[in-house]
Amino acid sequence: MSITTAITQSLRISHPVLLAPMDLVSDARLTAAVSAAGGLGILGGGYGEEQWLARELDLLAHSGIQYGVGFITWSMAKNPRLLDHALERKPVAIMLSFGDVRPFVSPIKRAGAVLICQIQTLAMAKEAADCGADILVAQGTEAGGHGVSRGLMTLLPEVIDAVGGKIPVVAAGGIADGRGLAAALMLGASGVLMGTRFYATQESAALQAAKERVRSATGDDTLRSIVFDISRRNVWPAPFTGRCLRNSHADRWFGREIELLRHQETEAARYAQARSAGDFDIAAVIAGEATGLIPDIPSAKDIVENVVRDASALLSNSARHVAPHATSNQIS
Amino acid sequence: MSITTAITQSLRISHPVLLAPMDLVSDARLTAAVSAAGGLGILGGGYGEEQWLARELDLLAHSGIQYGVGFITWSMAKNPRLLDHALERKPVAIMLSFGDVRPFVSPIKRAGAVLICQIQTLAMAKEAADCGADILVAQGTEAGGHGVSRGLMTLLPEVIDAVGGKIPVVAAGGIADGRGLAAALMLGASGVLMGTRFYATQESAALQAAKERVRSATGDDTLRSIVFDISRRNVWPAPFTGRCLRNSHADRWFGREIELLRHQETEAARYAQARSAGDFDIAAVIAGEATGLIPDIPSAKDIVENVVRDASALLSNSARHVAPHATSNQIS
Repeated sequence: MSITTAITQSLRISHPVLLAPMDLVSDARLTAAVSAAGGLGILGGGYGEEQWLARELDLLAHSGIQYGVGFITWSMAKNPRLLDHALERKPVAIMLSFGDVRPFVSPIKRAGAVLICQIQTLAMAKEAADCGADILVAQGTEAGGHGVSRGLMTLLPEVIDAVGGKIPVVAAGGIADGRGLAAALMLGASGVLMGTRFYATQESAALQAAKERVRSATGDDTLRSIVFDISRRNVWPAPFTGRCLRNSHADRWFGREIELLRHQETEAARYAQARSAGDFDIAAVIAGEATGLIPDIPSAKDIVENVVRDASALLSNSARHVAPHATSNQIS
Repeated sequence: MSITTAITQSLRISHPVLLAPMDLVSDARLTAAVSAAGGLGILGGGYGEEQWLARELDLLAHSGIQYGVGFITWSMAKNPRLLDHALERKPVAIMLSFGDVRPFVSPIKRAGAVLICQIQTLAMAKEAADCGADILVAQGTEAGGHGVSRGLMTLLPEVIDAVGGKIPVVAAGGIADGRGLAAALMLGASGVLMGTRFYATQESAALQAAKERVRSATGDDTLRSIVFDISRRNVWPAPFTGRCLRNSHADRWFGREIELLRHQETEAARYAQARSAGDFDIAAVIAGEATGLIPDIPSAKDIVENVVRDASALLSNSARHVAPHATSNQIS
């Protein structure tokens, strides 16, 4: 089975399934695994640790498989050499999220890479389209990590209505299985990008204890806030907030962010220690609402294959819902 | 064309399209129009104005068409005679949202009505299922009016995984067209419930100026908050907040709710006056993110027919995305 859309051609992939470039979690191993399974792995360049990026890019070069590289735009903008490093390796795509992409469009296009821009509002979508994005990723508020407040169910078709005639749009945020891919295609998407689902795979660079939390949490157990950013001294520009699994630390400080700032010295030290120790009652597991759709920790290959198989079955059988003639409405 | 699901049988309707029981907006006229078009109109019993309810129920009785009646559970619980009034007219269904349904399950079932429970979290879904709900409505945060924070894209399949084997689940929040219905069916839903889309119809009891705002707003132009509830002295229990179109009043007070409470006396008077005058720079237009998918103010019949026609076309043609064999992944 395979599912063909506009992006399977432009990205030269078998399946319209993309790996979210999760900072440090989407390393060379996970990226290569998703690409090898027929999707597109996108390396989590994230905030941009130069040594980490160089090492992971080398690993990918040795694997011989195609891949993309993702950056947090406003962070990478502080050190654009990171983008140069990535472009030298001729990735098939660069994905930029959160910030002004304009300074980077020309170098990306010159290098022959596909420019994927992730957006969270209609206004951002129009801006990215005007800047020359080749593919948009519409990210709903369901997503893990940083994002904004709009739900995918409306953001996706609205963005498609605005720019979809010219630019393929990929759905992100809250998608973890074949149902999500099939639904996204019905809404007009050209594919899906998944983070949390790939977080809980064998190849993911996340700690095992964090993966286990993703496996056991329900979708009610996440929170979009700035508590974890304050706690790790990681200031983000508005309007971005971050979704994580709820834990003792988040429950303690959510809604009391100003008080947390007053205690930032001690709390940041405590948080840093918890991160080193893998104590996820304090340190955040950065995951989205899709955590409630994740019952296992399989290989990335299994994920790609199951998502495509299940979506294919749904799409192939969906005509069964439709009857050619309306039955008359009965009165009770 | 018609779309057949578990609820089209139990509710004896041609199309799995339900009218959200919007307080005062979903009056007898709109309710009858949706039912006449083959969906299920659900009268907006809302907070329960006894005279309004009696009058609208009389109008529906004269129309001879089947319908449901919806209530805000915690509000109706203060005057359960409202439910008795509704049940005496033998509605096909009672829909309860926001609160503990247990005291009302027996009278509803004794009257032979289908019990529809709207929920916003997985925990609420399990509780409603245990209480004996016949149909669940999973309402995503995209919805207009009161709701909670979970996105429909994850809430819907997670609720279906938990209770869908026993109880049909209807999707609500952010659905306004055939794409939304087709996507909801792919996620496993048995139908959709739409509010904002029916708000902007000819038959809706909303003021014309409010309908025009829904038509012209984008999905970026809504805000989930408690500003309008403070302003109209309408205290809701946690965790419910309300989504409305942004306007001058919301922009002025959002994030400053404690200060608004300090000025409640004057602001509530100002707000009440604006409501009477139809001044929607101050008074809230209660609408969801689907406002961005709404370009017109047609008849309710056109909405039902277009949603079903467009969803049918998508579902009938969705197999085109699927190829029987995977193509090999090309290396860049």
